[in-house]
Amino acid sequence: MSVVLPAERLMKVLGYSFQDPQRLKQALTHRSYSSTHNERLEFVGDSILNAVIARTLYLAFPQLTEGELSRLRASLVRQEALADVAGELQLGDYLSLGEGELKSGGHRRPSILADALEAIFGAIWFDGGFSEAERVITALFASRVAKIDPAQALKDPKTGLQEWLQARRQPLPEYVLARQEGESPNQLFEVVCLVRGLQVETRAEGPSRRNAEQQAASAALALLRERHPGKRL
Amino acid sequence: MSVVLPAERLMKVLGYSFQDPQRLKQALTHRSYSSTHNERLEFVGDSILNAVIARTLYLAFPQLTEGELSRLRASLVRQEALADVAGELQLGDYLSLGEGELKSGGHRRPSILADALEAIFGAIWFDGGFSEAERVITALFASRVAKIDPAQALKDPKTGLQEWLQARRQPLPEYVLARQEGESPNQLFEVVCLVRGLQVETRAEGPSRRNAEQQAASAALALLRERHPGKRL
Repeated sequence: MSVVLPAERLMKVLGYSFQDPQRLKQALTHRSYSSTHNERLEFVGDSILNAVIARTLYLAFPQLTEGELSRLRASLVRQEALADVAGELQLGDYLSLGEGELKSGGHRRPSILADALEAIFGAIWFDGGFSEAERVITALFASRVAKIDPAQALKDPKTGLQEWLQARRQPLPEYVLARQEGESPNQLFEVVCLVRGLQVETRAEGPSRRNAEQQAASAALALLRERHPGKRL
Repeated sequence: MSVVLPAERLMKVLGYSFQDPQRLKQALTHRSYSSTHNERLEFVGDSILNAVIARTLYLAFPQLTEGELSRLRASLVRQEALADVAGELQLGDYLSLGEGELKSGGHRRPSILADALEAIFGAIWFDGGFSEAERVITALFASRVAKIDPAQALKDPKTGLQEWLQARRQPLPEYVLARQEGESPNQLFEVVCLVRGLQVETRAEGPSRRNAEQQAASAALALLRERHPGKRL
């Protein structure tokens, strides 16, 4: 059995002291433990995390396009990355989990850790207002934002998808032109990206075939990373 | 040619007066008009809109689950709904569009209107801070939130998807059980929802087959609404 620690230590590492500690307790409660669990808070917390990171990246990278900012954000807030942040806070030690989840190592599961972290952001928003939540999120992600190398992070998504699949010994994706409309310079291309072995089919539109392929590859990669957060399939 | 009106009238209906009117101008500028366009602001504005609506729904509907809140939000912030709000503000009259977009009726196009509205929310956040953006968004969406009837809005997604397809004379979706793991009460079902005619394939996991089917149907419906915002295909 893991021991649930008093939350004062957690508030200290978060840099935020709850006016109503019940809010923090709820954010740390998995649905397997109680009906007063953290899923609704997670919904709100996910949204404030996305907003704060969007603004941070907008200001940090004035030269990047909307699509590039969106990809950088996805890399910062995906489950694995959030579970890393949760790990630094030792969030697993504070979670309330049901018997079954406890036995199966739920306090180390990336999805449970990531959800609880987001729920904490939502709880801070309700407890202390937006600017407090923004301050905590900004502090937790500052070093990660500072480390972003756009050239590396924004590596062409087709290359990224190919590397992801090769590392897992999967067949390479296929790109199919589904539609082509209009005349230059207002042409529209729609491309489907198929990863047959893994039942992934994404599609995207763009002003060129290459652009549409890159976008479809980016969507496929995001989906695969979400479905298979680990290094192995 | 549409006449671009001075933005004072728009600020009046928005209920927000920009300290730096250039920010509003940029939010109203489509990429076809200038390289100083609204797409980056839209990225930030979309995120603050999602956060403010998430919090509003959380407080308004304490009995709803995370998934239900998420579906209500999707219905409030989808392109059609945003274009409606933009229409009430007569946003089309204020847009700066390139020659081609002007000629093809760009100032009435739902995607252009919705994007500009989101960009305005982002611009207000930068210009006046979060609470001003929150105030404007809350005011614009208050009547829509008040009108939500959860029973109707949360109509079972499989029914919703079926009705959507029937209204467009499309074949009905198929649900395929892709995976089943674990033992009751910790079973996990993964279901694929296929809408063959429209190249849609979504998948979802859930604690029951029915739950996974509903979630996959919900994802398919969201995708279809995004791809085909109108009443016809």
